[in-house]
Amino acid sequence: MITLTTDFGLGSPYPAQVKAVILRIAAPGVDIVDVTHEVPAQDVVAGSYVMSVACPWFPPGSVHVGVVDPGVGTERRAVLLEAERGDFLVGPDNGLLIPLAEELGGIVRAFRILEDEVSDWEVSATFHGRDVFAPAAARVASGESPERFCEPLDPEELVEPPIAEPEVDDGHVRAQVWFVDDFGNIITNVLYDEVDLPETVTIRVSGESFEARHVHTYGEADSGDLVVLRSSSDHLEIAVVEGSAAELLGVSTADRLEILY
Amino acid sequence: MITLTTDFGLGSPYPAQVKAVILRIAAPGVDIVDVTHEVPAQDVVAGSYVMSVACPWFPPGSVHVGVVDPGVGTERRAVLLEAERGDFLVGPDNGLLIPLAEELGGIVRAFRILEDEVSDWEVSATFHGRDVFAPAAARVASGESPERFCEPLDPEELVEPPIAEPEVDDGHVRAQVWFVDDFGNIITNVLYDEVDLPETVTIRVSGESFEARHVHTYGEADSGDLVVLRSSSDHLEIAVVEGSAAELLGVSTADRLEILY
Amino acid sequence: MITLTTDFGLGSPYPAQVKAVILRIAAPGVDIVDVTHEVPAQDVVAGSYVMSVACPWFPPGSVHVGVVDPGVGTERRAVLLEAERGDFLVGPDNGLLIPLAEELGGIVRAFRILEDEVSDWEVSATFHGRDVFAPAAARVASGESPERFCEPLDPEELVEPPIAEPEVDDGHVRAQVWFVDDFGNIITNVLYDEVDLPETVTIRVSGESFEARHVHTYGEADSGDLVVLRSSSDHLEIAVVEGSAAELLGVSTADRLEILY
Repeated sequence: MITLTTDFGLGSPYPAQVKAVILRIAAPGVDIVDVTHEVPAQDVVAGSYVMSVACPWFPPGSVHVGVVDPGVGTERRAVLLEAERGDFLVGPDNGLLIPLAEELGGIVRAFRILEDEVSDWEVSATFHGRDVFAPAAARVASGESPERFCEPLDPEELVEPPIAEPEVDDGHVRAQVWFVDDFGNIITNVLYDEVDLPETVTIRVSGESFEARHVHTYGEADSGDLVVLRSSSDHLEIAVVEGSAAELLGVSTADRLEILY
Repeated sequence: MITLTTDFGLGSPYPAQVKAVILRIAAPGVDIVDVTHEVPAQDVVAGSYVMSVACPWFPPGSVHVGVVDPGVGTERRAVLLEAERGDFLVGPDNGLLIPLAEELGGIVRAFRILEDEVSDWEVSATFHGRDVFAPAAARVASGESPERFCEPLDPEELVEPPIAEPEVDDGHVRAQVWFVDDFGNIITNVLYDEVDLPETVTIRVSGESFEARHVHTYGEADSGDLVVLRSSSDHLEIAVVEGSAAELLGVSTADRLEILY
Repeated sequence: MITLTTDFGLGSPYPAQVKAVILRIAAPGVDIVDVTHEVPAQDVVAGSYVMSVACPWFPPGSVHVGVVDPGVGTERRAVLLEAERGDFLVGPDNGLLIPLAEELGGIVRAFRILEDEVSDWEVSATFHGRDVFAPAAARVASGESPERFCEPLDPEELVEPPIAEPEVDDGHVRAQVWFVDDFGNIITNVLYDEVDLPETVTIRVSGESFEARHVHTYGEADSGDLVVLRSSSDHLEIAVVEGSAAELLGVSTADRLEILY
C-alpha cells in the first residue's frame, strides 16, 4: 500500500500525475490511498503532523510518500527511509518525514534516491513528486531493493524535524502550533500525557492572555467556550466549542504559545 | 461497499485514519468510496442532503457512514440503522441519517452501537468517526451481525431529521435551504413535483423580494438571470445562470424563504 | 481505466453520483481515478489544461471524462472522441476535450452521444455528468462499441479549443494564462521549447511591466523573486519563489500577457 501526503492542491493536475506514474510502474495489486493533497502550500510543519498521525494507522510495511517541497530543484536530497516497523518513507530531506519515522520506531536505514536512475524519463526541475518520489515509492512497494536506485546515507546527516520539542516545566509549557484542522482546532506539539493540567489554564499568545477550561470532551463546555483537551492524536489540543480556536487566538502553524497553570 | 460522508475537511488527517481503520478490519474486497469530506463544518442539515441524494445511487446493501457530529463525546448515541432496501447506515443519532433512511424505504431495524465493544482500542472523546463508526461499518460490511456490537433501539427514539417538511399551499410555499452547492445553486427542501409553478415566481427572503423565471434548463435564461427549476435530485432549485444564487439572496443552509406565485 | 475531471466541487454530492453510475454500469474491474473535481466553476479553459497534462500519463486506451459544462441543457452536443493513441474522451462539445485529444495524437473518430439511448433512466436537464457522460464512459470502457449509443460526427464540426495558439515572434510573445495552480504559479499557453529566452525578460500585463529572471529551478532565485521557467508540463511558467505570481500580476485564467526580451 502506498499513501500520499502533499501540498499539491486538489484543483491541480499534480496528484493525478503522481498516481498515474505509480500505476504505470508498480506491480499489480499495489493500492494507493490519498492521505491529503491539501497541506497548506509549502508548510512542512503541518505536513509533518499529518503524516505522523495518519500514516501509522496503515499496515506495517506500507510506503508513505510525503511531498511538501519548497526546495525542489536545489541541492536538497531526495530520500528513502526504512522505519523500524517495516514501513518505507519517501520524500524530500527537509524534516517532513522525521516525526513519522520516529512514530514508526525510528530509522533503520536511510538512502539518497539517485534522481538519474529512479525513472526512465528526464527529471523535471520542479516536480520531483512525479519524477522522483512516485517512481521510488512504486519500486520499493513492488519489492525492489532500494540499492537498485539509491545510495546509502547516514541517518545522522538528515535534516532535523521542522518543529522543536516543547519545553515542559511544572505550571509552564512553551509550545508551538503543530497543526490547525478544518474546524479551527489547534493541535500543539505537546503530548497530553506529558502535562497534568488543572481545571483551568491560561494560554498566552503574543502578549495576550486567554482563560481556557480543561475538559475531556467538547460536550462538557458551552458553544463558544475556549477549552483544552486531549486530541484524537493524543496531543494537547486547544479548541473553541462549535467555533475556531485558531481564529480566536490569531495563530497559525509553527506559532509559539505558552500554557500557564 | 462502504461510502463516507463527513465534515472532516480534506486538509486533515481524519479521512485517511477512517479509511485505514476500515481497511484493517473489513474483509478483503470491501471497497471504500468517498462521497465527500467537505460538508460545511458541523452542518448536519447540509450533510443530510448530501447523503440522501448521493448514497441511493450505490448498490442496495451498501454501508453508508455519515459523520457530522457536533455532539461527539456527549451522551448522544452512536447508531446503526438497517434500511428497507438492505443498506446499513452508521453515524451519530442527530438526524443526519434520517433523510437517507427514508429515501431507502424507511428503517427496518435500529441499533445503538456499544462503544466499548465495537473496536479493540480505547475510544477517544473527540473522534468517533475513527474509533466507533469506522469499525462498526467495517464489521457490518464484512457480514457480521449488528447484534455482536450493538443493542436494539426503538426507531421511534431516534432524533428527528434536521430539516422540517416544507409548507406547500397553493401559490405560497414556505421552504428552507437544504443545500448550497459549489456553484452557489440553492437546493430547497421542496420536491419539484409537489408544486406547479407558473412562468415567473417571487422569492421572499428576510423582507426582500426577488423575481425569478421558471425554466427547465439554465440555458433558457441569460447569464445573471435568477431562475427556479427542477434540480438533478428532483428538488426545487434556485439558481443564477453562470452566477451564485446563494450570494444574490444572501442565504445559507437552513435559512427560510418563501416562494409566491 | 476511467479518469474524471470536473468542476463539480468536492463538497457536492455530484462526484459520488457519477462514480456510482459508472460502478453500476461498467464491467467488473474497471477502475475510476479522480483527476480533479475542483476545476474553477465553469472554467473551460482551466479544465482543458488539467485534462491535457494529466490524462496522457494514464495508460493508452483509458477513457477520460471531462465535465465543465456551462451549456448543459442547451443544444450543445454531448460527444465521444476516439484519439489516435487509443483513448476515448467523453464530455460536452465546448472545446474542453480538444487540447487533450491533440496531445493524444489527434481525433480518429468523433461521435455525438444519443442522450435518449445512453442510459435507461430519464436524463435530467442540469446534470449530464451523471445521466449522459458517466453511462457513455462506463459502456465504452467495458468494450461496447460507440455506435450502440452514438451517431457519427464530422470532427470538423466540433467546437474549437477554448484557448488560442500564442503568437511567438522573436523577442515578443503574446500569450494567455492557461492555468493557475494552488501555489499561484501561472502556466501559459506557450511551449517552453518554442521560445529561446535570455537571462531576464519583461512581462507586460494590462499596462504594467514586471522584470522576471529566467531560471531552471525555483531554487536559483530568492524568496519573493519573479521568475520564468519550464513548467513540469513543458510550458512557459511564471512563478514567484515561495509566493503567488497570479496575485502579483493580478491575472487569472485566459488573461492576456506579453513577454518581451
